[in-house]
Amino acid sequence: MALHPDRLFPVDADARSIARRLYAEIAGLPILSPHGHTDPFWYADNAPFPDPAHLFVVPDHYIFRMLYSQGVPLEALGVPRVDGGPTETSGREIWRTFAKHYHLFRGTPSRLWFEHSLEAVFGIEERLTTANAERLYDVLAEALTTEALRPRALYKRFGIEAIATTDCALDDLSAHRRIQDSGWAGRVLPTYRPDAVVDPERPGFADALAAFLSLTGQPSTYAGYLEAHRLRRAYFKALGATATDHGHPSAATADLSSGEAASLFETVLAGRADARACELFRGQMLTEMARMSLDDGLVMQIHPGSWRNHNPSLFHRFGFDKGADIPTQTDYVRALRPLLGAVGNEPGLTVILFTLDETAVSRELAPLAGHYPALRLGPPWWFFDSPEGMRRFRETATETCGFYNTVGFNDDTRAFLSIPARHDMARRVDCAFLAGLVATGRLDEDEAAEVATDLAYRLAKEAYKL
Amino acid sequence: MALHPDRLFPVDADARSIARRLYAEIAGLPILSPHGHTDPFWYADNAPFPDPAHLFVVPDHYIFRMLYSQGVPLEALGVPRVDGGPTETSGREIWRTFAKHYHLFRGTPSRLWFEHSLEAVFGIEERLTTANAERLYDVLAEALTTEALRPRALYKRFGIEAIATTDCALDDLSAHRRIQDSGWAGRVLPTYRPDAVVDPERPGFADALAAFLSLTGQPSTYAGYLEAHRLRRAYFKALGATATDHGHPSAATADLSSGEAASLFETVLAGRADARACELFRGQMLTEMARMSLDDGLVMQIHPGSWRNHNPSLFHRFGFDKGADIPTQTDYVRALRPLLGAVGNEPGLTVILFTLDETAVSRELAPLAGHYPALRLGPPWWFFDSPEGMRRFRETATETCGFYNTVGFNDDTRAFLSIPARHDMARRVDCAFLAGLVATGRLDEDEAAEVATDLAYRLAKEAYKL
Amino acid sequence: MALHPDRLFPVDADARSIARRLYAEIAGLPILSPHGHTDPFWYADNAPFPDPAHLFVVPDHYIFRMLYSQGVPLEALGVPRVDGGPTETSGREIWRTFAKHYHLFRGTPSRLWFEHSLEAVFGIEERLTTANAERLYDVLAEALTTEALRPRALYKRFGIEAIATTDCALDDLSAHRRIQDSGWAGRVLPTYRPDAVVDPERPGFADALAAFLSLTGQPSTYAGYLEAHRLRRAYFKALGATATDHGHPSAATADLSSGEAASLFETVLAGRADARACELFRGQMLTEMARMSLDDGLVMQIHPGSWRNHNPSLFHRFGFDKGADIPTQTDYVRALRPLLGAVGNEPGLTVILFTLDETAVSRELAPLAGHYPALRLGPPWWFFDSPEGMRRFRETATETCGFYNTVGFNDDTRAFLSIPARHDMARRVDCAFLAGLVATGRLDEDEAAEVATDLAYRLAKEAYKL
Repeated sequence: MALHPDRLFPVDADARSIARRLYAEIAGLPILSPHGHTDPFWYADNAPFPDPAHLFVVPDHYIFRMLYSQGVPLEALGVPRVDGGPTETSGREIWRTFAKHYHLFRGTPSRLWFEHSLEAVFGIEERLTTANAERLYDVLAEALTTEALRPRALYKRFGIEAIATTDCALDDLSAHRRIQDSGWAGRVLPTYRPDAVVDPERPGFADALAAFLSLTGQPSTYAGYLEAHRLRRAYFKALGATATDHGHPSAATADLSSGEAASLFETVLAGRADARACELFRGQMLTEMARMSLDDGLVMQIHPGSWRNHNPSLFHRFGFDKGADIPTQTDYVRALRPLLGAVGNEPGLTVILFTLDETAVSRELAPLAGHYPALRLGPPWWFFDSPEGMRRFRETATETCGFYNTVGFNDDTRAFLSIPARHDMARRVDCAFLAGLVATGRLDEDEAAEVATDLAYRLAKEAYKL
Repeated sequence: MALHPDRLFPVDADARSIARRLYAEIAGLPILSPHGHTDPFWYADNAPFPDPAHLFVVPDHYIFRMLYSQGVPLEALGVPRVDGGPTETSGREIWRTFAKHYHLFRGTPSRLWFEHSLEAVFGIEERLTTANAERLYDVLAEALTTEALRPRALYKRFGIEAIATTDCALDDLSAHRRIQDSGWAGRVLPTYRPDAVVDPERPGFADALAAFLSLTGQPSTYAGYLEAHRLRRAYFKALGATATDHGHPSAATADLSSGEAASLFETVLAGRADARACELFRGQMLTEMARMSLDDGLVMQIHPGSWRNHNPSLFHRFGFDKGADIPTQTDYVRALRPLLGAVGNEPGLTVILFTLDETAVSRELAPLAGHYPALRLGPPWWFFDSPEGMRRFRETATETCGFYNTVGFNDDTRAFLSIPARHDMARRVDCAFLAGLVATGRLDEDEAAEVATDLAYRLAKEAYKL
Repeated sequence: MALHPDRLFPVDADARSIARRLYAEIAGLPILSPHGHTDPFWYADNAPFPDPAHLFVVPDHYIFRMLYSQGVPLEALGVPRVDGGPTETSGREIWRTFAKHYHLFRGTPSRLWFEHSLEAVFGIEERLTTANAERLYDVLAEALTTEALRPRALYKRFGIEAIATTDCALDDLSAHRRIQDSGWAGRVLPTYRPDAVVDPERPGFADALAAFLSLTGQPSTYAGYLEAHRLRRAYFKALGATATDHGHPSAATADLSSGEAASLFETVLAGRADARACELFRGQMLTEMARMSLDDGLVMQIHPGSWRNHNPSLFHRFGFDKGADIPTQTDYVRALRPLLGAVGNEPGLTVILFTLDETAVSRELAPLAGHYPALRLGPPWWFFDSPEGMRRFRETATETCGFYNTVGFNDDTRAFLSIPARHDMARRVDCAFLAGLVATGRLDEDEAAEVATDLAYRLAKEAYKL
């Protein structure tokens, strides 16, 4: 049951040989993780990770959503209630439930990430079953108490060169400060994520906005609000940030006159913005953020198109990020035009687009990225950070915008132990794709080797200025 | 020209060997056909099938639409006129026309189904040509007169364990009663299809609604209308039904208050419903049907997104189901939210979604089915019940919702002789997909074998409670 | 670095052998190029082509858009300014810039077309590098002065049997007349492209319309306007045209009463048409053009769905066709219904649909073309005239509408030297697809060979009446 050394490579023997050669050259490259959601306090505190269930199951929405979809209550998986309901389930019980339903993950990337972690981190080459669940739990739990499995040791063992976290615009970044003050050699960068103070439709927006202005000492005017962003961006940048991150319901952007924008801000501030005004405000702020990026050099990431919290009763009981964020069809051509009209021709700006709607890749995203100097395509992501998703991304993007309008791989994860597995998967799938090009006479192998390195390492380093 | 024993398997020798082994274990499993459109009177009467042309060409919209698209008039194919126009064409003439245009089916599933039927049922291993058309016609016509080719004998020979028909809510199910009274061992189940009394925009709706209330002795109120559905569902269930089936123009659902719903029903009853109100009424009824399913345990099937009768002059001359039903882009995320908000978290409910818009699979359907306990994905269907369609379905669904949020294969056909061919195709394509996972180190072969059985048999048995 | 003899064939040895055999039979077939944008004056004047940069880089939007997307200014590529700005860059400088960024084209069809041209036309088997750029420039520049590389010689050497140009409805076709008068054996056909006098939203429409009526001596009435089209179509047809071509923002069609249409024309003529009226007028004209095609036999081509000139500041400086035309999502089912209701059942009419939105192929276009006698699908085109694009087209179209509702390959290019490369690519990809069908038991090889010839030659000849 050990990991197959040729996993994810082409089945044809010749193409597989090419993939092997390409992969051998890049398998050991350092990991750059410029977009993700690990907890900066892990690196600051360097405390041991919790038990196996609370490491692998409870925080991973890929895992618990699949179990939930087959009738396992989230309570039985230890997912915390936000409505005061009871939630106590022991790690061991959760693990047993996971083992019992392990077959559900056949054919999914979760299965591959999990088994890669088991083998690479814990040396376990058995498939999880109801029979060995207890024993494996003990083995994992024991190992997790050791120094070698603490966050900083794993950071080093995984070969991570830099990792970005995602942080609210209001965050004081105390974890990041502590990391830097500690003298530890690891590189953990914050990322400026201002959705909480940009999206009037988010719960708690009014309070967040007030706190934002107060924190930066700015007046309640549009000019003050923009200056508050500039100040917070500068603060994040001073602590190492190289990027911002924006997750909006749609890709809508706007480029209003300063008078219109100021007036819209007043409407928003007064809590009188309707759905259309909220959409317009979010869109205006994307363009403002792009302009600020031109000034301060932070790379801008946009990932639109998720219908957050689609399941109302589940949201009431368990809150955000519980696997009920569902992708929607996303238009980019009309939506991005105001932003692109304003700053799309700036070669000094980098705007990285992610999509949850893969039908837009060949039709809209690759043509846009293959034209506008400021645009790059982020890797396949969230439901598409998978072998088939990655393959389809290369097949639909490359012929139109090439490899060099993409930015290498992001793991986009909060599951720290899965990071090497995810990067390894991306490297293998990219090598498989490149091997296919070589085997069919579309690319010479020396060039493919160069591209493999670019996709695994160099493009991320350049795009994110790492 | 005999069927290739390795057809539809991977071309690579190693992967092909794996597929062969997987297929060998499931090739002989019984056929479950829980969604289809065969005529229950076939099994009740057990009369011989008609001549080859009226068996293979005249009733098969996949066949005659292709011929029509290349200029063959439907009259020349014996398709009956509904406007009183002349239609007489002999079976032999139709067959000759079919043979003359047989090359049009190259690369289509119709070709594979037809040749599978010829070989498996009639022992014919020749390709149909203008040269052998007459002779093959005679051979087939002769064979069709034998006892061995009557419906019940074929049912047994095909290894069918259970087959569902699709029946109007007004149907008296006399065929089903006769089948059950006959003591025959075959299992033929009705399916409750209430579109005729649910969709105010269907021709004849007012009369159907009146008949529906009269048949069940219910008053012309919303409460009476809902009770009429409950009574008819109970009647269908008593005769073996385990499922309902709903084919709407869109996936729109609604969850109105009882007062709003009652008032909407009055508008519909009065014939005053405009397009928006009709859409709302259909949507409300989907949610009501889901609630009734929670009570009576019938599995609910929804297949939205077909623009019926797109060709007006053809519809005028030939009526419904003449190959002019064209898929449209279909939104599921917004459309299903009312229904899912009402019953989506019920693990005791099964709602099976089909799609004619495959772009929704990776973006919307797999994420929804990979979260909501009540949702399952039906197999690729209608234009996608084909090798490439099935492959793409597995490639786009599996990584997000796994195999176990799908329900095995449905043949969805009115062409009885093609049923073994269609199931065999699905089994082969699924084995090919699984072999690919095994060959690329993504799944162990023992697990793939279990999944192959699940997809070919067990998932349908469970989902449809057969 | 020479072209791989098996390029674009399947990697599996058996499937590759089949592809080789199929390809060997069609590799030498004449080229039919019934839809393209080469300059008719090339064939009329038979003057030498310009220097290598002005042949390969400056006029090819696939090339310069990729370079532009990575920060190379269009000025540095010699693209002429339309706003009076400076543009002078020498061919040699442009070529150096191209060589320096040549890696950007890895994995793109531009790379394959370019290298095929280098090898087939110039005998160069080296990869372009900064090191050999100067030398290759000299070799190419020298060769381009020879008689053998003039347009008419290349036409013959490429094995072109007929090539269509695309010509404005106002064009006097003087080049075509000169070609015909010259007695040269080549066959260069004009194509009637009336967008300039059909789309009220195009810059210069009013003047074009006035010129159109004046040229044909028609009054400013709808009847006069339609008659003007008939006269111009007849003029084009007399000079060899067999087709018309229509590039609209959407696929919208209309079928107004003659009174409504006349009144709409008056609104348009008066310059009072708003966006909705412009869309309606374009849609009405598509139906009128289809009716005229029924009368005069010209094949009708429709290619909707491009958002032209998406980049406003670039458009201001460089004008049309600068790589900023971006595909948009395109509906065909609702949009085409008026036209199809009017003429879709006419087997004597051929309407060829192209799409820039490949998601519509399996959902809408193949079902429509697999039903309506008048419809055929054009080849994958513009961003999809690539190995993966062609493969996906066959995979998503064939099972529903077969091969015979498609029309073979069009190169759609203004890059004369790439024509053999593009046709060779299409032939290889189609042979690869067919080989896959044969290797998986879906098609017999003798039939595949017939289909290969049909796709490479016969279907274009028939569809375009060449």
